[in-house]
Amino acid sequence: MTNLPPEFDFIDWVRRRSRSRPEVRVPIGDDAAVLEAGGREWLTAVDVITEGVHFSLETTPPELVGRKALAINLSDIAAMAGEPCAALVGIVFPRDRPQSFAEAVYQGLFSLADEWNVSIAGGDTNTWDGPLVISVTVLGLADERGPVLRSGTRPGDWIFVTGALGGSLHSGRHLSFMPRIREAQALHSCVDLHAMIDISDGLASDLFHLLLPARPKGTETVPARKLGALLESSAIPIHDDVPDNLPLEERLHHALNDGEDFELLLTVSPEEGQRLLREPPFDTRLTRIGEITETPGVLIRHATGTVPLPRGGWGHCFGGDSRDPVT
Amino acid sequence: MTNLPPEFDFIDWVRRRSRSRPEVRVPIGDDAAVLEAGGREWLTAVDVITEGVHFSLETTPPELVGRKALAINLSDIAAMAGEPCAALVGIVFPRDRPQSFAEAVYQGLFSLADEWNVSIAGGDTNTWDGPLVISVTVLGLADERGPVLRSGTRPGDWIFVTGALGGSLHSGRHLSFMPRIREAQALHSCVDLHAMIDISDGLASDLFHLLLPARPKGTETVPARKLGALLESSAIPIHDDVPDNLPLEERLHHALNDGEDFELLLTVSPEEGQRLLREPPFDTRLTRIGEITETPGVLIRHATGTVPLPRGGWGHCFGGDSRDPVT
Repeated sequence: MTNLPPEFDFIDWVRRRSRSRPEVRVPIGDDAAVLEAGGREWLTAVDVITEGVHFSLETTPPELVGRKALAINLSDIAAMAGEPCAALVGIVFPRDRPQSFAEAVYQGLFSLADEWNVSIAGGDTNTWDGPLVISVTVLGLADERGPVLRSGTRPGDWIFVTGALGGSLHSGRHLSFMPRIREAQALHSCVDLHAMIDISDGLASDLFHLLLPARPKGTETVPARKLGALLESSAIPIHDDVPDNLPLEERLHHALNDGEDFELLLTVSPEEGQRLLREPPFDTRLTRIGEITETPGVLIRHATGTVPLPRGGWGHCFGGDSRDPVT
Repeated sequence: MTNLPPEFDFIDWVRRRSRSRPEVRVPIGDDAAVLEAGGREWLTAVDVITEGVHFSLETTPPELVGRKALAINLSDIAAMAGEPCAALVGIVFPRDRPQSFAEAVYQGLFSLADEWNVSIAGGDTNTWDGPLVISVTVLGLADERGPVLRSGTRPGDWIFVTGALGGSLHSGRHLSFMPRIREAQALHSCVDLHAMIDISDGLASDLFHLLLPARPKGTETVPARKLGALLESSAIPIHDDVPDNLPLEERLHHALNDGEDFELLLTVSPEEGQRLLREPPFDTRLTRIGEITETPGVLIRHATGTVPLPRGGWGHCFGGDSRDPVT
């Protein structure tokens, strides 16, 4: 929203305004909300994607649009190391599209849902004279170790990232990526994950969400002490989708800011970090890219010196998505 | 969708295509999906409302739009006699609206959420050049008696409705109605509710959802035997919002077909029904309007004779909403 003050944090406003309930263990502000009853923790998240902003139907088959709508939600469950179980699908279809179009969107949803044994358990289907809108809500279960939050970061932690970053929108990878559910569960079962998030807006944006550790009980009214991070420029894994004829500086910029990577960004103690490097729990690339610092702010160390990394990625308003249309 | 065969039941197609999981106790097709873990049943439903279809911003303050987006979901939880706990809000805001507009939409959401002690536990906020779209997912808990489904109807059951019907869209009641959460819980605690639904599309449409009883275990592949209903024309409670200078036949038509009443439609045994008439558990009007029959089809008895009641209410495509725009 162009006439919104950019510093206005809508999500924080909603969180402060919203009621707490004993069932709501983790409210708005993490990758998913956590609701508890009967000793079991459900993770639940919603994402809305819209034609002309997150995809163009001129260049994207409806199957891939449906797939993406679910995939980005599964990635939220992965970011908490949960197991996705069910999805609810709210869709507004353009009135002039044929039935085969609606079926194709759902075929894309089902293709990914079947791979992860996710049940499409509910929905609401509408039509209008506007563009395609898909809102998917996913529900997953935390395992017995509980969900991994964004707020468990500690000074000295090592920062890891799965896969490689950059070029996702340009290459179309944002439509076909595989959510890192398996990797997150494997990590959660073999090390003590302090904090985790999936990279949707870009490393240079999402990293900042890991720098606000939870306040100890009874100090919730004290402003949180922010942490910082030091990234190693040479360690950032740049995806092959970033053209290699670009200058390195520009390639790095893509890796840091393009977003829609849907890779896991996580922190662990140095001891656990060393163990991950010695015995990686899966074949997917897992790279140590830096460490958490006591000093607030994010720095990046280049061969030529260490400089502040400005908060980047997709511009946010309302704490949400205000990227330029893709059409 | 104009080029869809009207008989195509999209929701049924999705249900048949979707995977089952042990956690999913009630899949797509009821008022809410039921997910179980740790012995507790969560009810969850999604509804999407769109500018120009479900509301007009030329005539409706944004607070009432936000309120309605939550209210229709709370009504789904009421229809299963659950207790709403949390909501996730996916919104796409028109880019040219000021911040105060977004806050006003949320103030409307919060006004109702606070009344029912519902936590806004998650969300996704986007902007675009299109109209306002709000997708709300609500999560509620079933009580120890479990959720009330649509499929428990039995021949001979009495049919009841809360409140009065008709004129909701015309009068604006669809923006300010109070979901029948309290009434549903009171009914559930004092009688054996066989089946229940909330009236969103109109009595003459939603009643049909109660006429497909669950198949006994092991006979799921046998087509369900449809039940029927006989309504008493003179018993249908017509809302004051229906102009009383209209001919009775026309007023009845409004009560049967206008929709957006968000009243409870429920069936109980005749014995329980008599008890409800003798000792109504609340002050809200509760009317016996007919009974369930072995013979399929819905009949309505007028003073002049008994005639079939055509399936009415809002036209459906994809099993969803295709009403004419309200703008």
